[in-house]
Amino acid sequence: MEKRTEYIEGFKFSAVAAGIKKPGTDRLDFGLIYSDRPAAAAAVTTTNLVYAAPVAITRERIAGGLCQAVLINSGNANAYTGEQGLSHAKELTGELSAALGIAPDLVIPMSTGVIGHQLPMDRMKSALPALVSELGKSRFMDVAHAIMTTDTKAKTVAIDAEVSAGPFRIAGMCKGAGMISPNMATMLSVILTSLRVEPRVLRECLKEAVQDSFNAITIDGDMSTNDTVLVMAGGSRDAVALPESLSDRMAFASALNQACLDLAHQVVLDGEGTTKVVEVQVTGAPDEDSARRVARVIGDSPLVKTAFHGEDPNWGRILCAAGRAGVPFDPDKVDLSIGVVPIVRNGAVVPEDWESAAHGAMQAKEFTVRLDLKAGDAGARIYTTDLSEEYVTINADYRS
Amino acid sequence: MEKRTEYIEGFKFSAVAAGIKKPGTDRLDFGLIYSDRPAAAAAVTTTNLVYAAPVAITRERIAGGLCQAVLINSGNANAYTGEQGLSHAKELTGELSAALGIAPDLVIPMSTGVIGHQLPMDRMKSALPALVSELGKSRFMDVAHAIMTTDTKAKTVAIDAEVSAGPFRIAGMCKGAGMISPNMATMLSVILTSLRVEPRVLRECLKEAVQDSFNAITIDGDMSTNDTVLVMAGGSRDAVALPESLSDRMAFASALNQACLDLAHQVVLDGEGTTKVVEVQVTGAPDEDSARRVARVIGDSPLVKTAFHGEDPNWGRILCAAGRAGVPFDPDKVDLSIGVVPIVRNGAVVPEDWESAAHGAMQAKEFTVRLDLKAGDAGARIYTTDLSEEYVTINADYRS
Repeated sequence: MEKRTEYIEGFKFSAVAAGIKKPGTDRLDFGLIYSDRPAAAAAVTTTNLVYAAPVAITRERIAGGLCQAVLINSGNANAYTGEQGLSHAKELTGELSAALGIAPDLVIPMSTGVIGHQLPMDRMKSALPALVSELGKSRFMDVAHAIMTTDTKAKTVAIDAEVSAGPFRIAGMCKGAGMISPNMATMLSVILTSLRVEPRVLRECLKEAVQDSFNAITIDGDMSTNDTVLVMAGGSRDAVALPESLSDRMAFASALNQACLDLAHQVVLDGEGTTKVVEVQVTGAPDEDSARRVARVIGDSPLVKTAFHGEDPNWGRILCAAGRAGVPFDPDKVDLSIGVVPIVRNGAVVPEDWESAAHGAMQAKEFTVRLDLKAGDAGARIYTTDLSEEYVTINADYRS
Repeated sequence: MEKRTEYIEGFKFSAVAAGIKKPGTDRLDFGLIYSDRPAAAAAVTTTNLVYAAPVAITRERIAGGLCQAVLINSGNANAYTGEQGLSHAKELTGELSAALGIAPDLVIPMSTGVIGHQLPMDRMKSALPALVSELGKSRFMDVAHAIMTTDTKAKTVAIDAEVSAGPFRIAGMCKGAGMISPNMATMLSVILTSLRVEPRVLRECLKEAVQDSFNAITIDGDMSTNDTVLVMAGGSRDAVALPESLSDRMAFASALNQACLDLAHQVVLDGEGTTKVVEVQVTGAPDEDSARRVARVIGDSPLVKTAFHGEDPNWGRILCAAGRAGVPFDPDKVDLSIGVVPIVRNGAVVPEDWESAAHGAMQAKEFTVRLDLKAGDAGARIYTTDLSEEYVTINADYRS
């Protein structure tokens, strides 16, 4: 996959070691993504009421539907840093825009790392010229590495697809669920496509793609102050434009969904202390929101997640979680299975010996829980992890 | 405390070892509480959509406002047992009512233990005559022991107070958060008072008392299929009646609140894998519901709970949890403190060296987190626990 994302028409990359978290280290921590021309752009940001300075700026600037450069750092989230944090982010993106000769509003800042600390402005400002001069010499993967915090591996995806006007590529990078105190489980993702897409269409497609991917994963139910998914479209002057036909739009939307789902999946797999990834599928709900709510309550329940960890087909905990989601259904009608193993059918535990088979299904690193509420036609799925002793150990570790 | 609850006017007790979970064991697991006359009664039961057979029967019978006997067992929750579970509970309470010579509707069944298994009717029916004949020979504490599952100690409370008509006593028992698979964290409580109280008044007072006690504790956010708090008032023919004055009503309500809070506190303290009990106080909320929601999201956050475990004053995780509760407030205005140590004031981290003091405050087994949202005048508090490796180990343990 690394090879395939090395090149995407119209975009250039650079990454340097600015020593943001600790001076003098040579770990890449400061990256730049640059589009040859102002690209159509859309973003989905955290719904947390407490949001970081770069998120505030992203929301403001993305409203125009254009972006030409993304300045992205790890080591410091610039969150809970007040007015000073805001001016720092503006100052950095301002200096960068001057160096690049573009409008300041075309630069989007993204940050991840410790919160409650001001950015080390001296070190970051000194690194800006190198970021600009290195443009095109670094690779996509270097930026993907620069945004890692406690991620154990860089997370990228590349998809080649086609619309009636020609082929296009989507390349995405993502950082995931690092939760070393006092960081949050910040999720940052930048997705690039060679296709030229109207900002409005891009926004609609991204919203939908995020719903079923990044918004469908849960590691501990917490949402970070910095979570951002940004998409940029058509960096090249010669970019193929997305035709207006429904089938073309569906082809693009489907590729974007696939990219988001793949990245989200990598985030869950790399979650701290994760030993299992579980897909919770809820069907037969009155509406999609209800299905999602039931799936999420199941996926967030510590009792369910510890049972996943213990490979214990504890259907009682799953149904009990479903029962407190606030969605009306008749418990005496539901079907529940783990993997291919049916456990509850029409509200009653199946008479066959399901237990060892279900336990066996849960010994896989990835498995599915299916719950049919028989209360409607809507469904949703979320991806969750188990809850392990290691998760607690990592997150209870006092900052040293 | 044991001594003080040995006697409460108008009520008799019995408890036997019926071998409900496993035949032949001599652990008390079947109890009976009997009132000399039909007592005014009220109950609050689980809000989970999936509720056990005894809960269904309790709801129906308590509607009349009277109860004379409580038949209560551990070892089997009679939950997710369908129509058969319902008839089993009706059959047992029916036989008991015949033996006691009272109307079947005056018997309330309560169960806790494994779910998805039918009650061992033979063993339970054989034990009924002994339960009846032992009435008055067993003590309050014997029943408190009979309802324990994974509780490490019996939980009881006794309060002596006074209304203008004379003194009264409240005695309560409770079982808590046993979560050994496939049990739920069932919470059962029976509270008795020597005072004669109108069913309507009793209902109102109980509802309010439960709100700020049993409904204000969270160990893992899960709610059981069997949770029930039952109160019975004025078992004796000579019971002092609660006068209608407001001050008398307040005296009773206050004693009932105190009893519920004391029991709820014991439940949290005895939570599996609990090493800390944390009171989360939220003030300055637009309304009480909002305050409660913010407190609960903080108290349910695995990231916050692991930080509690690590004695890490990680204010970022607390504010981040508050920010996703869906309650409007301005993060730049809030105050946050742990114990007596101020950490955030008017949205900014205090300039003083708060860290070691806050860490020190968290080394206590019990401490308080205070968050002032500065967005209104309402407040609420909840009690939560830390999240420990031991919690995971206990709950991930595969049933053997």
